Amino acid sequence: MTSSTDLRKTDLRETVESYWASAEARDWAAFAGTLAEDVVYTLPQTRECVRGRERYVQFNREYPGDWHLRIERMVAEPGQVVTWIHFTVGLEEMYAISFFTGDAEGRVASVTDFWPEPYEPPLGREHLVERY
Amino acid sequence: MTSSTDLRKTDLRETVESYWASAEARDWAAFAGTLAEDVVYTLPQTRECVRGRERYVQFNREYPGDWHLRIERMVAEPGQVVTWIHFTVGLEEMYAISFFTGDAEGRVASVTDFWPEPYEPPLGREHLVERY
Repeated sequence: MTSSTDLRKTDLRETVESYWASAEARDWAAFAGTLAEDVVYTLPQTRECVRGRERYVQFNREYPGDWHLRIERMVAEPGQVVTWIHFTVGLEEMYAISFFTGDAEGRVASVTDFWPEPYEPPLGREHLVERY
Repeated sequence: MTSSTDLRKTDLRETVESYWASAEARDWAAFAGTLAEDVVYTLPQTRECVRGRERYVQFNREYPGDWHLRIERMVAEPGQVVTWIHFTVGLEEMYAISFFTGDAEGRVASVTDFWPEPYEPPLGREHLVERY
């Protein structure tokens, strides 16, 4: 497990890379090491939140299915990172967009996740768009 | 209208701030000034894309309703910006997450938008979450 000393000078971009790599590896000790003890995870679409490192690790560990992820895009500035993640569970594909903030030690202080679903385009704009 | 000369040394963060401010103001000339001529707008949820400044301005100008927006969060690094926007149309509230890339002049070269919708939380995680 990565100790908080190791992370003292880590910038948040590297922490977030470790966060996703350890989630994909189901390495929950390393995953916990990327998190502030009072981390807050928020899902605005369901108005849910999970408070604290222990519950949040459990929330991820219990998540069902043989899911796999890859980072599609990452944008980082000091103290803030956003990732666009491509998830697969069997043949199903999903996107997740996650806004991270960091604490003074470069650990994850908050994560706000969005899970956008496919939908049918509204009528009336066919003259301007292409489908792919 | 902001000329491309004015934008030559603009960083993408400032361009994106102008993009949203001019959209909110329905100032389509200023909005067009933030865009590269060959801008590409992509909606992964509907698999639609709009190519070129003229069509993309028209796409926004024709968008129905008395919508208003505010920037909830912005994360920027050189050449890449992400915004989380809070939209209202009457009493309806929505979020949009937009990934921007820039061209050499600091104009918007691509926008990829996600529009996540509310959904009911899955059963089985009530012991770990709070609702808000």
